Amino acid sequence: MARIVQKFGGSSVANLDRIMHVAHLVKREVDAGNEVAVVVSAMAGVTNQLVELVQKVSPFYDLREHDVVVSSGEQITAGLLSLVLQSMGIQARSWLAWQLPVLTDESHSKARIQLIRADLLKEELSNNKVAVLTGFQGITEDKRITTLGRGGSDTSAVALAAVLKADFCDIYTDVDGIYTADPNIVSKARKIDKITFEEMLEFASQGAKVLQTNSVEMAMRHNVRVRVRSSFSDVPGTWVVDESEILDHAPVSGIAHSRDEAKITLVDLIDHPSSFEKIFTPLSEAHINVDMIVKNISTSAGKIDLTFTVSKGDLERTLYVLEQRLTENVFDKINFDPDVAKVSVIGLGMKSHAGIASTMFKTLSEKGIPIYVISTSEVKISVLIAEEYLELAVRALHAAYNLDVH
Amino acid sequence: MARIVQKFGGSSVANLDRIMHVAHLVKREVDAGNEVAVVVSAMAGVTNQLVELVQKVSPFYDLREHDVVVSSGEQITAGLLSLVLQSMGIQARSWLAWQLPVLTDESHSKARIQLIRADLLKEELSNNKVAVLTGFQGITEDKRITTLGRGGSDTSAVALAAVLKADFCDIYTDVDGIYTADPNIVSKARKIDKITFEEMLEFASQGAKVLQTNSVEMAMRHNVRVRVRSSFSDVPGTWVVDESEILDHAPVSGIAHSRDEAKITLVDLIDHPSSFEKIFTPLSEAHINVDMIVKNISTSAGKIDLTFTVSKGDLERTLYVLEQRLTENVFDKINFDPDVAKVSVIGLGMKSHAGIASTMFKTLSEKGIPIYVISTSEVKISVLIAEEYLELAVRALHAAYNLDVH
Repeated sequence: MARIVQKFGGSSVANLDRIMHVAHLVKREVDAGNEVAVVVSAMAGVTNQLVELVQKVSPFYDLREHDVVVSSGEQITAGLLSLVLQSMGIQARSWLAWQLPVLTDESHSKARIQLIRADLLKEELSNNKVAVLTGFQGITEDKRITTLGRGGSDTSAVALAAVLKADFCDIYTDVDGIYTADPNIVSKARKIDKITFEEMLEFASQGAKVLQTNSVEMAMRHNVRVRVRSSFSDVPGTWVVDESEILDHAPVSGIAHSRDEAKITLVDLIDHPSSFEKIFTPLSEAHINVDMIVKNISTSAGKIDLTFTVSKGDLERTLYVLEQRLTENVFDKINFDPDVAKVSVIGLGMKSHAGIASTMFKTLSEKGIPIYVISTSEVKISVLIAEEYLELAVRALHAAYNLDVH
Repeated sequence: MARIVQKFGGSSVANLDRIMHVAHLVKREVDAGNEVAVVVSAMAGVTNQLVELVQKVSPFYDLREHDVVVSSGEQITAGLLSLVLQSMGIQARSWLAWQLPVLTDESHSKARIQLIRADLLKEELSNNKVAVLTGFQGITEDKRITTLGRGGSDTSAVALAAVLKADFCDIYTDVDGIYTADPNIVSKARKIDKITFEEMLEFASQGAKVLQTNSVEMAMRHNVRVRVRSSFSDVPGTWVVDESEILDHAPVSGIAHSRDEAKITLVDLIDHPSSFEKIFTPLSEAHINVDMIVKNISTSAGKIDLTFTVSKGDLERTLYVLEQRLTENVFDKINFDPDVAKVSVIGLGMKSHAGIASTMFKTLSEKGIPIYVISTSEVKISVLIAEEYLELAVRALHAAYNLDVH
């Protein structure tokens, strides 16, 4: 007997037929004698519709009210799945984030879970009742609704698995697992059987949309074994586990990419440490994540050009925040480009293998792809390129590192 | 300066354009220096869609989960209206029922409000902030979500007005006010300027869909002055007030009707007081309201036929509950008929005027309309008839009591 958290994403609960199917996947675990907590997303498309409504109302909206509107979708799915389970003779009830509660910080629209009070849930599970929790949402200390950002239900599921000390957390989605590259771009991409938290973290933050970054960080921190699998087929998924569970590592485990990038260049910034603070503190206060940063020499004396990336969705707000700074004469001009993409080579084995970076630069150079920005970590090398080169770059790198299926 | 509660129904917030218009109606009161609390319904059609989803899952569903699903619509409207108000420079925030909280009993899907903790709201109002509350919903003592039944947002608004000691409660809807009869049926119907709580209670419970019965009861109990008016025009509405505010009463103030009736006859019921208990206790426990009841003589000795009405929506559950009783030999057979309607003549002046009932029976008889069941109170006479006669009966009675506009 195991204690399991099962998470079902939007495409897995897209309509009543899909929800019925999900109920069978839950029943299978219950029939096997397992204790089951379920985390659900909103039905596919619902959250997008709600976000659109909010954006139509005002471009610079109150994120607290944004969260009130967009968090309503999960409530519907949780109630419906509980009803379907009941109709199959399984004791089940829905739990909304505020009912436990799931406490988060106050970063509305991208909040982080701080605490889940799960005493009531544990009691229900030990009485063989299935608990169906709304993912993606939480509340602050003063009872305002928060949401966890795109893919936040993954984080809800992993956090719940950690609190419940679950044996593992199954993330059901519309793909079979993690691939060496996006199969829509690289037809020769392979499914990965096991991957480390560190690598998955890079895949997630580099734009593989299967798992949210926060959820992988949380899994790593609490050593929650996560399995990414399909709710549409019974193909074995990909296990995301601790490094110690994997015996040997290929130097490169895959190629990730992200189109959700926008490049901003501040022209003729005063070359002084205080300039950076003046730029990045207000962005941070506006909860805008800055990713790749590079400093270039300017033609003006005592000035530099500063290039960095934010997500496309934050571009408008970033420009708004920066334009306020423009009046303070910290820099002269803002250039921006939303038509960029990031490509990353990822591998835990990279630490112990030389030449990974040079292969990357050589491959891109041979295809005539200019590199705008480079960033690296112990387990990845990322480059920012024009979005139009994206597919070409991913396919060329996949082949260059011998990842293609033959 | 007044303190006002404004309630906007589903058609008033049906889409973003309508919500913008509602925001202007709120702003008008704010600009006039008033303290404003707003209660909103779900966008038109949303709650029906949610109810359909629940019904597709299972005909005999857990009402607690039903309430979780169907209460999600108001959350969206409250958030969106708050955002629109903010974009117009008005300080506003949404309040979900659980955030105050609005406490109800445990009669899921038709819960009654027991208590509203409004300390935080009062503080906001006195700081000139507009509070936008989700109507229709509450929570139980143990934090399960409840809904108040169809039109429950009216009750939310009146209850809030009572708690806030508001000067009055404006119920904005898609009609100009209360009419002497449904203008869709009687082209010569007149709008009523002022009506007493007692009469409105009969209009509401007899099927005029403008205000929910519970809301009128609550207004009467707490003497909350209610105005029913249109969010689509600036025509003065109908005030619903205490008897003392109206100087003279016509004997009949209007004709109400309801199609939401189903007739059930239990054939050959054992004629003993315990029989009634055996029938009505389980119905009551299933939260099914029984309306008109009549006892007929049966051809079998020591037996009677019992006829009563329930709302059409409760028919299926009523039959289910009664069929369980059938096995106990309390009665022999169940007949039912959903194609019935109720027509009511309403007037506070009825108390002091003779001949109101005889005019009704004479009028229906002249038109050849058979009466199945009769029920009366101090301010109304109701008859159950075949649904096919409904329009004919309403028009004939409206003319007979000289209510037609000339």
